[in-house]
Parts: sequence; structure tokens; C-alpha cells
Amino acid sequence: MSFTLAMSPLLLPLLGDKEVNELFSSENEIATLVDIELALIKAQEKFNVVPKGTFNRVVKVAQALEIERTFIDHGMARDGVIVPTLVSLLKGAAAPSDAAHIHLFATSQDLVDTSFMMRAEAAGVLINNNLVRCMARLEELGKTFGQNSLVAQTRMQQALPIKVADRLKSWENNIATPVIDWEHLGFFLQLSGPVGTYFDPKVKNAVAKDLGLLCADASWQNDRGPMLSIGNACAGVTGSLGKIGADIALMVQNERQEIKLRGGGQSSSMAHKQNPVKAEVLVSLARFNAALLSGLHNAAVHEQERSGSAWTLEWQVMPQMICAAAGAARLGLELLNSIESIGS
Amino acid sequence: MSFTLAMSPLLLPLLGDKEVNELFSSENEIATLVDIELALIKAQEKFNVVPKGTFNRVVKVAQALEIERTFIDHGMARDGVIVPTLVSLLKGAAAPSDAAHIHLFATSQDLVDTSFMMRAEAAGVLINNNLVRCMARLEELGKTFGQNSLVAQTRMQQALPIKVADRLKSWENNIATPVIDWEHLGFFLQLSGPVGTYFDPKVKNAVAKDLGLLCADASWQNDRGPMLSIGNACAGVTGSLGKIGADIALMVQNERQEIKLRGGGQSSSMAHKQNPVKAEVLVSLARFNAALLSGLHNAAVHEQERSGSAWTLEWQVMPQMICAAAGAARLGLELLNSIESIGS
Amino acid sequence: MSFTLAMSPLLLPLLGDKEVNELFSSENEIATLVDIELALIKAQEKFNVVPKGTFNRVVKVAQALEIERTFIDHGMARDGVIVPTLVSLLKGAAAPSDAAHIHLFATSQDLVDTSFMMRAEAAGVLINNNLVRCMARLEELGKTFGQNSLVAQTRMQQALPIKVADRLKSWENNIATPVIDWEHLGFFLQLSGPVGTYFDPKVKNAVAKDLGLLCADASWQNDRGPMLSIGNACAGVTGSLGKIGADIALMVQNERQEIKLRGGGQSSSMAHKQNPVKAEVLVSLARFNAALLSGLHNAAVHEQERSGSAWTLEWQVMPQMICAAAGAARLGLELLNSIESIGS
Amino acid sequence: MSFTLAMSPLLLPLLGDKEVNELFSSENEIATLVDIELALIKAQEKFNVVPKGTFNRVVKVAQALEIERTFIDHGMARDGVIVPTLVSLLKGAAAPSDAAHIHLFATSQDLVDTSFMMRAEAAGVLINNNLVRCMARLEELGKTFGQNSLVAQTRMQQALPIKVADRLKSWENNIATPVIDWEHLGFFLQLSGPVGTYFDPKVKNAVAKDLGLLCADASWQNDRGPMLSIGNACAGVTGSLGKIGADIALMVQNERQEIKLRGGGQSSSMAHKQNPVKAEVLVSLARFNAALLSGLHNAAVHEQERSGSAWTLEWQVMPQMICAAAGAARLGLELLNSIESIGS
Repeated sequence: MSFTLAMSPLLLPLLGDKEVNELFSSENEIATLVDIELALIKAQEKFNVVPKGTFNRVVKVAQALEIERTFIDHGMARDGVIVPTLVSLLKGAAAPSDAAHIHLFATSQDLVDTSFMMRAEAAGVLINNNLVRCMARLEELGKTFGQNSLVAQTRMQQALPIKVADRLKSWENNIATPVIDWEHLGFFLQLSGPVGTYFDPKVKNAVAKDLGLLCADASWQNDRGPMLSIGNACAGVTGSLGKIGADIALMVQNERQEIKLRGGGQSSSMAHKQNPVKAEVLVSLARFNAALLSGLHNAAVHEQERSGSAWTLEWQVMPQMICAAAGAARLGLELLNSIESIGS
Repeated sequence: MSFTLAMSPLLLPLLGDKEVNELFSSENEIATLVDIELALIKAQEKFNVVPKGTFNRVVKVAQALEIERTFIDHGMARDGVIVPTLVSLLKGAAAPSDAAHIHLFATSQDLVDTSFMMRAEAAGVLINNNLVRCMARLEELGKTFGQNSLVAQTRMQQALPIKVADRLKSWENNIATPVIDWEHLGFFLQLSGPVGTYFDPKVKNAVAKDLGLLCADASWQNDRGPMLSIGNACAGVTGSLGKIGADIALMVQNERQEIKLRGGGQSSSMAHKQNPVKAEVLVSLARFNAALLSGLHNAAVHEQERSGSAWTLEWQVMPQMICAAAGAARLGLELLNSIESIGS
Repeated sequence: MSFTLAMSPLLLPLLGDKEVNELFSSENEIATLVDIELALIKAQEKFNVVPKGTFNRVVKVAQALEIERTFIDHGMARDGVIVPTLVSLLKGAAAPSDAAHIHLFATSQDLVDTSFMMRAEAAGVLINNNLVRCMARLEELGKTFGQNSLVAQTRMQQALPIKVADRLKSWENNIATPVIDWEHLGFFLQLSGPVGTYFDPKVKNAVAKDLGLLCADASWQNDRGPMLSIGNACAGVTGSLGKIGADIALMVQNERQEIKLRGGGQSSSMAHKQNPVKAEVLVSLARFNAALLSGLHNAAVHEQERSGSAWTLEWQVMPQMICAAAGAARLGLELLNSIESIGS
Repeated sequence: MSFTLAMSPLLLPLLGDKEVNELFSSENEIATLVDIELALIKAQEKFNVVPKGTFNRVVKVAQALEIERTFIDHGMARDGVIVPTLVSLLKGAAAPSDAAHIHLFATSQDLVDTSFMMRAEAAGVLINNNLVRCMARLEELGKTFGQNSLVAQTRMQQALPIKVADRLKSWENNIATPVIDWEHLGFFLQLSGPVGTYFDPKVKNAVAKDLGLLCADASWQNDRGPMLSIGNACAGVTGSLGKIGADIALMVQNERQEIKLRGGGQSSSMAHKQNPVKAEVLVSLARFNAALLSGLHNAAVHEQERSGSAWTLEWQVMPQMICAAAGAARLGLELLNSIESIGS
């Protein structure tokens, strides 16, 4: 398999979001893949592609299945994807008559792409919830401090006086676009078989409905538009919050003190320091996703019916981008919540 | 000033689109900036912000204005933007009573951002026209060659037989997304004054209407979402066509000959070569825009009310991305038009 | 803390190198940081900065120290770096008189940068060993198959006949440069205190010697040249092997069969497939590091005496780049070892 | 052709260096290519590969040659490189007996790569001269203001007092690395014929000597290490100066006034503004080159004997990176020269 624990355990508390990160754990990846195999059998049974009763029997097999990690690792190293190993474990544990009805007409990419979409969709809800909370917090800050004064700064120089509300409004506008983008993102089932040509629309629709995904007529196995849209939206989140982080890090300078934050970071050598850590790392996350985004768009050059190179590149990039976006949304909210006052 | 000749004269015939490139010439940049100043006066006159008659007088001044390049260059080097120089030239040429009504309440960023949007919008029409023509050509190819056979290739190995129509359909799907993206892009007036807080909505709306742009309630001077959307769409175009280029370069290998192209590139040393130049450089353009996109998303970290750093970075990146997208759309169409047969 | 488990457990068997990845585990990170604190005390004791006997006592404290993960995580989230928490745990466990001599004059960045350099140096040895083995394998292949024929391919078209030896030589040349680069990389102690100005050269030299690092006169806390050099070298490794991977994926096409590989990847749906997985993912790793490299070079804009933003960005990027380079070197060797024949 | 006018005429006064930019003009590109063809004939005549007298006759032909731009453009669009057209123009103008001795055994890539290296070498001298002047200026500033006080800033917060000399020293260290890198860069002749296998070392050495380039034993046509090294060095220049620019933009804030600059940029709307334009755009150039560098490293995946895709990508990226480095070196020096005082 592919999409997995996206952030290192040490960086996670600083930069990530536990819940979203967990979506991309190895365990969750494997469990999701099995769920998709089952949903496929269920739909195929409904439309008489496989015999009645198959689904119930394979569910039991799947529940009892013990997956040894060494098998998984070995298969991943050999095949470049864990699905062949997973399918052969499932088939091996099932009755031979059922084995023939597992993974029927499907291919590895159907499983891996669909599994990613399910988790991206779940992550999107969590990310957007935090963005919406950020906007509500900005409204609240506006009510409390909006009429305070601030000096607008253009090109790193004092320009003219503005209200705190003006600055807050610009922050809200920055967040509004990714919120809308996430709401409009499509999370699609991939189910088109080895070369993108197969699958009864009825089966596809049933599987998509079961898994909570959209169902496009066409295969997107070698049309990565849906992946690009998700990546663009991730970078939108981190970029917007990076702008807010950069502003706050400037406002909190000792010589400016235009904002007061609760709970700064401690230094190992200077007891007086109160570092605006969350503001700073929002900028880091923005630049991190900007870099990864170029990797993702390189993966749009997805040659022929399936590109091992381009597809594997997505695995290295996409879960990290989502986790960075989730971390930024979490940190952004915490940072805004830590504001004690703005302006004067 | 800012947005300018985006591609080198030598690379242009190979990689660009003359018409779109011309949109970003120095001459067109300056002319567009002057047009915006005039549209502003016109709207302000309409709503009695400046005296009746100002517009007609300043139009004549603008028409007679001779702009010495050394002035422009000197101003650009000193101010980081040509607007102050341009405005002072206009004011100097106008009657003193009119001079006070030129560039009234506006700031450099209003001019430069709006000028970019006008040209991006014009470029988008040209790009999308070529994309739509590509899709029509693919339909046509499908009618002629769609029932021919091809071996699907997954992970650089023969998979299973498909129809040529299947491959063509995947190409069409790749292009369909950027077409829709471009159709939904918003090209916005920027008119919010020195610190983003000013401007009568009536004046804004009139200027926007005059210039053919959308008018958002809020300033986007430090909310670069509209720029990111355009950049993402540019990378979408080059990525999609890069995928098609990569496919064709593989299909045209001498050992595969799954496609026949008219008019290959010549070699300076090997008379027998027919190089699939257009297919190859579509891949180059995809990777070029993927790289620039990371620059653009770094520029989303646009600190405070106006960031000289982030804004200037956009100037280096955005016109090039648009011109690369335009080049790809032009080349894609030429490449598809050069197909003599596909499959067997 | 900072540099950590750099690759997801599921991707590791496919894309990584276990040994190098382990260098960047949380456990190893923390252990290394403690080692550096001890080396500092040892050197300070030698030069009478701290009382004789301190080192032996603190070593025992460190050996007995039990570090609860929740503490680490909480400190990381608050301070943006684990060193303050780690130091306070160490000090808390030591006798009060010794506590005052722990982390004396040092700062978090001293610890984190030095810890990274120690592990980068160790990783470099492992990476270079595999690169050297790749070159030896290429020599061996040259002896066996070098006189076979191959058709040179330029611009994806047959050019002229060459010997297999010519192709192999170009692969060797590609690897030769990163080998030399890695051999010339400097791995430097960072020890300059809170604002980069402190430290007795004698102490610095002793610590550097103890830890196997170079000692520069100047602090590099806000001069990230040494980091850029390592990142450039990582991208050099993945780029070179990506070129070889791309070549092999083309040569192994069914229609060309210019190379024969042992042990291809299996498909979950097509029993006849033998996918050149290792060749493909070498290309993925090259593009992954190319993307991350832009993140790293953005982190060169390291403002003032210490940039939280830029520094944290390095943590997200650098261990991954090294692990990608290590994965590529491991995979490159395995791929070359799996070659059964080349040319005809 | 390929390497050309690298920066737009409007951005050039702000961001570029006229002299370096001129090196990459179309005219200079074509002239350099002709020079290389002549140097090749000269060397081949010396070693009796072509008849005595050929060189003198072809020199005259070349001097009289009028190159119509439409030919160049048409050839570039068709062949993806201007060399075939240029060679056929030269051959057409020469006596038939001489024509056979023009471009003998050479290929387009020999010409284009060599032409780039000649100009990169010339650019490097100019860039490094400015970097060395920057270092001298920093020494001078250190003598005048070094003992002034400054508050060190870590993580955007006041840390501890330092001397201005400490800050200046860190700037100097940042520049020192790229200076050394540029001094060690190798600029190599490319002369290996259509598939990289040809050329008498004597001829190669003679041509290299004539053109002022190094001569490697092996072809580097599909081993782009020399290109990566130049690109890395360009990003090193812009990154270092970007760090200094970021520092100065922070120091010059109205609330801090730790530095006083002469000649700030003017605003079109706020007469009191003195914008630190040069400091800001140094940051833009750093992020621009960081983005392009990822494009360049993608081009390291240069498949088979010559990749049209990867090679063309270099053309889009490399001249721009060099010109950005040259602009940064010029701007860095001007910025340092504009410092009137630092610290207090």
C-alpha cells in the first residue's frame, strides 16, 4: 500500500493534527482497503455478478484475517503496492469457491486510489471544521477589538492608520477561499479495472454510494485532475494560514507589540523569551506544501494507462500535504484562540 | 510595472503562443495601466468625485504622452513598480487642475493587479479556445481511428488490449478539467487604495464593468486566492497536455510505432531522425509550470497590507505560467492535428 | 526535537533504507541529543568550565533517565523544539549543583543542528557505500555485456548503434558526481549559544572531535550553507539514479526488451505482468527530492539570528531528502544486481 | 537555439543585471554558436580532419552571413533547437567542398551545451565580482559600525545584545559559501557527437582551450551533473542575499530603525513612504530560484542518450537562474552600499 503515516511522531505534536494523521496510518490504510474489497463484493452480489452469500462469508474471513507485517512489507517491496499481497491473503483464507469472487475485475489502483479518496474526504471535513472555527473566532475578535487602531504596513513600512477590523477582515478573506474550495472538492471512487475500461455503472454506483464517494462515468486512473484539486486546496489552506502566521510574527515583535498572545514557546537558554511558535510554523507549513505541490503537479504527467513513477510520487506527497493542511488548520485555530488583545 | 514579456524571443516559436505572449509585452503593460487610470477617472467623473470634463482632457493627455524608456526603467529600479513614474508623467503632462484628479485614491497595486487580471482574462480565452479545439480534434480522431486496437500499458509494460478510443477518451478527460477550471476562474478588479480600505462600491463597480472584470466587495491586495486559482489552472493545462505529450513520445518510438505523426523535427547530424519535438516539449512545459507553481504558492505568504517580496515574486512567475499554458495549448493542438494514424 | 522518523512504515520497504531511516527515529534523535549534552559537559570539564566529576555524575543521571513521551510531545508543541523539555528533565534528575552545569551556554539550536549533522554524516557513509557498489556493479556488467549492441536513443527515437558499454559508462558518470559530492561534504558542529556569539574554541574543538564532526570558526546558525550542500547532494543522488531508472523502464518495454531483469513486481489483476517497480520508483524519488529541494532553498532565507519558520521547514524536508537518497541508493543497487542481460 | 534573453525588459532594471542578461540575448546566443562551429573547424584543420584553409574560408562565410529571423524561428519551432537551421544556413553559404566540413561529427547538443557553458562562465565572473565586492563592503561597514549595539533577534523576538559586527559577520559568512562554490565550478565543453561516443581527444582539447572551457574525458550529454552544480550555485547566491534582504527589511521597520538606508522606493499614493525595495526583492529572487531549482533537478532525469523533454526544461530554467543570481549580486551590492548607518 501506499498512503500512510504522514508525519513523524516527533513533529506531529508541533506541526500536525492527530486525528487526520491517524487516517493515514498503516493500520487504517489496510483496514480501508479491506473495506473496499468487501463493498465491491457486496455490490457485485447485489447485481448477481457473484453468488448470493459471498459477501457474508468473505466478511467473516476478513474479520478473522491476521495480517503479518512481514508479508505486507515483502509484497510492497516486490510489487510496489500492497494490494496483490493483501488480495492473495484474503483469497488464501477464503473458501476456494469464494476466492474466485474476491477482487473480481478490480485492480490495485482501484483499491489504492479509492482508499485515498475516502480518507481525504474524512480529512477534509476535519480541516474545514477548523477553518470555519477560525473564521468564527475572527468574527469574535472583530467584535472585541475591531475598533482598535493599527498602522497598516505596506512593503515593511508604516503606511496609514487602519482599524483592527480591517486586518481581521483580510485574514478572514484569506481563509474564505480554501473553505469554499474544500466544500466543492469531489472525492471520487476509482473502479475501472486493470486498464481503465471495465465496470458496470450499476456496480460502480453501488460501491460509490456504500463508501460515501462520488462516481464519475470515466476512469480517472490516468487523469489525475481530482488529485491536483485536492493538492491545490491543501496548499490553499497552508498558504492562507501562513499569511496570518507571518503577520502575527511581525505584530508580536517586542518593538511593535501590536498583538498579545498567551502561552509563547520557551527557550532552553533565555528565560525571558516567549516565542510565537505557532505563528512561525504556520509559515513553515505554507512553504512545505508549496514545495510538495510542485511534486504533485509533476505527477500529473501520468504516462499511458498507469504510471508507476507518477503514482508512487503522489503517495509520497499527498498524505503529507493533507496532514500539513490539517496541522495548519489546527494551529491556526489555536493561535487565534491565544490572542489576548490586538491593536490599541 | 511588472507583468511583461514572458518568454525569450528564441524560445517563443518553440514553446510559446505569440498572441498571449504579446499580451505581456512591456508596451501592452504600459498601455493597459494608462487605460485603467482613464477608466478610474471616467467612473469618478460619473459619480462626481472629479469634475466633469476631466476624463476627456486626460484622455488627450494620455494619447499625446511620450514615455521615455529610461524614465520607466529608472522608476522601476527605484520604486520597485513603474506606477509612480507613470503617474508622475501623466500628471506632469496634464493641466495642474487635472493632475490632482489623476490616480485619485488609487495605489500602485490597484493598477498592477488590475492590469494583470485584464491580460490574464484575455489569455484565458485564447488558451481555452485551443483546449476546446483539442477536444474537438480528439473526437474527430476517435471517429476515424477509435476502433483500432492498442495494447494498454501499465507500469511501462503491456497490459491488455484496448481500443484507440479508450486512450483518446482518457486524453479528453485530462483536458476537460482545465477547460472547466478556466471557465470558472474569476478575474477581479483590484481597487482599494493604499491600505486596502478605500473605495466607493459604485466607483469600483463602474470601473470593473468598464474593464470587463469582476468586482469583489473586499480588497484582495493581501489575499492572493485569485492569483493562486489562475496559477493552479495554468499548471492544470500544462500537466494535462504533458501527459498527452508523454504518451505520444512513447507511442512514436520506432519499436512501437503506435502513432504516426506528420512533420517531425530534424537533427543536425542524423538525416533519418524525425523527432517528436512537440510531444517532448509538452512534458517540459508541464514540469516548468509545476516548478513555478511552488513559487506562486510561496507568494501566498503575503505579509501585512502589501508585501513587496511576495508581490514581486508573483510578477516573476505568473506571466510565465500563463505563457507556458498558452504555449502548451497551442502545441497540443498542433500535435493532435499532426496525427496521421493511431493504432492498428 | 526535530529530525525524526522520515518515512512512513508502509512506504519504507518500497522506497527507503531501513538503516538510514532508523537514524532519524524519535528514539535515536533523543539519544543523540543526550549524547551531545554529555559531550559538552565532558569538554567543559576538561577546560575547567564546570567542576571535575560533573561528567561522570551526569552520565549516570542520563542513563537512568526515563523520558515520558507525553512530556516530550507537550514540550515540542509548546516550544517548537524538544530541547527545553529534555534539558529540564535532565536538570530535574541531577543534583542541583550539577543541574547548573548542564546545557551551560548552549542553546536549542546547538543541540538540534549538531544532532542532525551526526546522523547526516552516518547516513552519508551508508549512501555512498551503496553508490560505490553501484559503480562496481556497472563495471562488472560492462565486462559481461559491454560489447553487446544497443541502439542509442535520442529524443525518444532510434539514433545510431552503440555498445552497451557506452550506455553503462554514462550511468557510471551520472553516479560519479554525487559520490564525489558526498565525499566532500562537511558535517559541522553547531555550538554557538543563544545568539551565535559564544563559545571557547577549545571547548568547541573538543566537542567536535568527540562527536566526529568538523568545527568551523563561525557559527552557521543563520548561515545555512552546510544544510544546502547536504540537500543538493541528496538531490544529486536521486537525480542520477532517477536517470538510470528512467532508462531501464524504457529498455524493458515488451517491444524493446533491451534489458532483462530478475524479479519484477506482480499485478493484482494481470498474471502475466512483470513490472519494473524499482526502475519506476527511482524516478519518483528523483522528482520527490527535486520538489523538497525547493523547500530547503526557501529555508535559506533564515532571518536574523534564528528563524523559527525557516528552521522548522528544514526539519520537514531534510530527513526526508536523506532517506529518499538512501532509498534510491539501495534500490539502485538492487536494480543493477537484478540485471540478467543487456543488449544483444 | 536555446539560451536566450532571460528576463523581461520591464523587470530587468529592478531584478536583473544588464551585462549578464545580455549574455543570454538571442543575438549573443547565435553569435556564440557560430564561434563554436568555427573553433571546431579550426581544431579539425589543425589535426588534419578537414583540409587546410577551410577555417579561413568559413570564417569569411560566417562573417558575411545574414541570418533572417524567420528562418531561425521556423527552425526552432520545427526542430526544437536552432542548430540544424544555423548549420544549413552556414553550409548553404559556403562552397560545397567546405560545406562538407562544417559541423563535422558534431551534433546540436554539442553546440547548445557548449554555448551555454561559455556564457555561464562569463556570467559567473561578473556574479562573483559583485559578491566579492559585497564582502569588502561588509568589512568596511564592520570597521565603521561594527562596535555599535544591536539586539539579536531569535524566533522574531528580542534575544540578547550583540555587536553590529556579529550580524555583519553572519552576512559575510552567508556570502562566503557561494563565492567559493562559484570559484570551484567547472564549465565544460560538450563535444561528443550524435550519440555521445565520438571525438578525438586532441580535437576536443583544442576546441576547449580555444573557447576557454574545461574538457572532460566523458560526454556529459546525458549526465547533467555540471548543470546541477551551476544551478545549485545560483540558488546559493540568491538564498544568501535573500537572507540579508530579509534581515534588512526587518531592521528598517519604522518601529525598529536599526538600519538607515539611502534612496528608498517611492509610493504612488503615500508621499512619506521610503520603501526598502532592494531588500524586499532580494527575498523574491531567493524564492524564485528556489522554485526553478526544482525544475532543474527534475531535468536530471535525462532519459537515454538525449532527452528532448529534460533538455528543453533546462533552457527554460537555467538562464533565468543565472540572471536572478546576477541580479541579486548587483542588488545586494547596491543595498549594502546604500547603508548609512547600522545599530546604535
